[in-house]
Amino acid sequence: MAGPEAVLDGVTFPWGRRMIDSDRFLDDLRTLRAIGGRGTGVVRRAFDAQDVRARHWLATQFAEAGLEARIDPAGNVWGLRGPLLIGSHTDTQPEGGWLDGALGVIAGLAVARHNPGVSVVSFQDEEGRFGATTGSEIWTGALTLEDADRLADLEGVTFGAARQALPATGDFPRPDRFTAYLEPHIEQGPVLDAEALAAGVVTAIVGLRQITVELTGQQNHAGTTPMPLRVDALRGLSDVDHLLRDRLRNVVTPQSVWTIGHVSLHPNAPSAIPGRVRFTVQWRDAETARLDRMEGVIRDALVQVADASGLGLAVSDTSVLPPVAMDETLRAALQDSARKHAPDAWRDMPSGALHDATNVSRVLPVAMLFAPSIGGISHDFAEDTAEADLVTCLNILAGAADSLT
Amino acid sequence: MAGPEAVLDGVTFPWGRRMIDSDRFLDDLRTLRAIGGRGTGVVRRAFDAQDVRARHWLATQFAEAGLEARIDPAGNVWGLRGPLLIGSHTDTQPEGGWLDGALGVIAGLAVARHNPGVSVVSFQDEEGRFGATTGSEIWTGALTLEDADRLADLEGVTFGAARQALPATGDFPRPDRFTAYLEPHIEQGPVLDAEALAAGVVTAIVGLRQITVELTGQQNHAGTTPMPLRVDALRGLSDVDHLLRDRLRNVVTPQSVWTIGHVSLHPNAPSAIPGRVRFTVQWRDAETARLDRMEGVIRDALVQVADASGLGLAVSDTSVLPPVAMDETLRAALQDSARKHAPDAWRDMPSGALHDATNVSRVLPVAMLFAPSIGGISHDFAEDTAEADLVTCLNILAGAADSLT
Repeated sequence: MAGPEAVLDGVTFPWGRRMIDSDRFLDDLRTLRAIGGRGTGVVRRAFDAQDVRARHWLATQFAEAGLEARIDPAGNVWGLRGPLLIGSHTDTQPEGGWLDGALGVIAGLAVARHNPGVSVVSFQDEEGRFGATTGSEIWTGALTLEDADRLADLEGVTFGAARQALPATGDFPRPDRFTAYLEPHIEQGPVLDAEALAAGVVTAIVGLRQITVELTGQQNHAGTTPMPLRVDALRGLSDVDHLLRDRLRNVVTPQSVWTIGHVSLHPNAPSAIPGRVRFTVQWRDAETARLDRMEGVIRDALVQVADASGLGLAVSDTSVLPPVAMDETLRAALQDSARKHAPDAWRDMPSGALHDATNVSRVLPVAMLFAPSIGGISHDFAEDTAEADLVTCLNILAGAADSLT
Repeated sequence: MAGPEAVLDGVTFPWGRRMIDSDRFLDDLRTLRAIGGRGTGVVRRAFDAQDVRARHWLATQFAEAGLEARIDPAGNVWGLRGPLLIGSHTDTQPEGGWLDGALGVIAGLAVARHNPGVSVVSFQDEEGRFGATTGSEIWTGALTLEDADRLADLEGVTFGAARQALPATGDFPRPDRFTAYLEPHIEQGPVLDAEALAAGVVTAIVGLRQITVELTGQQNHAGTTPMPLRVDALRGLSDVDHLLRDRLRNVVTPQSVWTIGHVSLHPNAPSAIPGRVRFTVQWRDAETARLDRMEGVIRDALVQVADASGLGLAVSDTSVLPPVAMDETLRAALQDSARKHAPDAWRDMPSGALHDATNVSRVLPVAMLFAPSIGGISHDFAEDTAEADLVTCLNILAGAADSLT
């Protein structure tokens, strides 16, 4: 620990308090990477042996940093002190990257070491072994612990049984002891890397809507049925894909996305004319009004294709996850700090992926900061970020935290 | 049995010999339908208990009609007498129709009862429990019995083990004891039914070619990857489908067909941009030159889509089944007879499906006659043909057989 005015990585910090120790931050990230490490990646599924080891290690780091370490009944690990909560999650996908949510938790720890106004959290099961962002869902009251306990993983192990591996050391901290939540995270997309930027300040976590479509034609023999007599469901799918590409172009922003990701063809045989196709259409945008407009375009296109081709059409109800706007004050603090620590090397951007901040926004103002993902790769052992960018992200976060506490 | 000149269904037969007995023909079809009958359909997989029962019943009918009944080592059932061979198969699909190949065998039996120049055959495993058109493949020398014995069905039962259920009563008859092969069959397509015709005289059994295509893009997160940075394999598939529709129109006849029947998407998840798609392209035509032209168009289109989209392209070798032209003399006999028995109610047409005649064409001149399939339905319990059309088909066949013997 150095004095109140310090030089780090050639940057003179304009704020006081202790120096932020970027070497220790990187060391902590590497130490955590070794828990459940597999080559360059990590396997720490919520409540598995390595996740439990990592959470005990994290509680120890919190305590050594002077925070009150606490494991709550949902397996969230807290380092409690000041009113500004910083964090993310340390559980991983079945084949996870070393940064993902760990970056946000360890950055929070590094900031908390030099700023007493900060608390830190690692939420549990963000990656959805049992549910999806389960730990922050429970803490924010969107899911009861009783209901969560009945969630089961793909092997049938319940959340209730799995959490016995990490006994609580205290109750859930009350949300009103905090004033705001900042979540640093890797981008998990290619935008910052493609533009050679060091950081992204998140404007909103985009909303997501999804429908399942079934087009029904006439299954038939691929040798004996003349082309004009065919009602081929696959052609319906390719017509929908083309029409959506054409129509959505006119109503969306560069940040709007849509995807046909799942396709199931029946009978799916080389010598059979496809009689039925089921597929998902998913679209995401940061604004509810635009999600509505996209839905209108998509549903109209489906009807148009079905009418033109003679295919039967069935469309599911729409699954809806609304967009979450970032708090203006928190966002401004991150922007101001980014201007100092990464001049001309950061941008505003939406988050296309969901995060714990989505849940936390129910109880606190939230904002997010992104570090670049090399090649846009995440949820993969190859996930990585340049060390210089990790440190820049830490410095932006620390600066914002200082201005907010 | 009536005298040499007879009236049947209001038609005076211009030829001599015995009357053809259409009531007995329909009765025999119904009797055979009951062996393995399931509602309106039939389940007689090659060498299963019902198929064996049906083949013993058939041998008995052959013997009672004055033919030499013989079961050969491959399970083909023969009714041997004259040099004109008529037949098809009596095994069915797992959910088969009552007519399919049975029509051709029972029509052959009916003709043989009044025309001593005729022999009859029911080939084994046309529907491919073990191989595909296995019995006629063995008889014509394209497949040895030893190799066939190693073919296994989906449960691992071999042809060699299965055929123990139907012991041979004699050796394979030599092909050179016959001079020609006629195969009546249901159309298994919608053409005759759509045009309200009673019969089709087959011009050729179309050739078939098939390739498997793999397009490789970039699997990625459907929320975080902007549209311009995507390399979406599903888009490649829909572009191929559209381009083939556009390009093939100009090079094909109304009888040419092409089908994308099998599609496998990876990772096939709603929130993942498809990184890879594998699909089959199959095309059929009666002429080799046109199959070649279609192949050129298809392979060019694949390269064009891959180049335009940045997708990786891998294409398998082409599976080839050449077209089989029908013998002119046999075809003319069927046409002449159709003119008499179904004036203005028949047409020339290719067979889009494969048949035992494909194999038999290696050793004998062949021709085929089609009866309509109601709604084009076959390989389904709902398969059916109007009785009047079945009788018309019998009369055309009998007339052609009389002119050829």
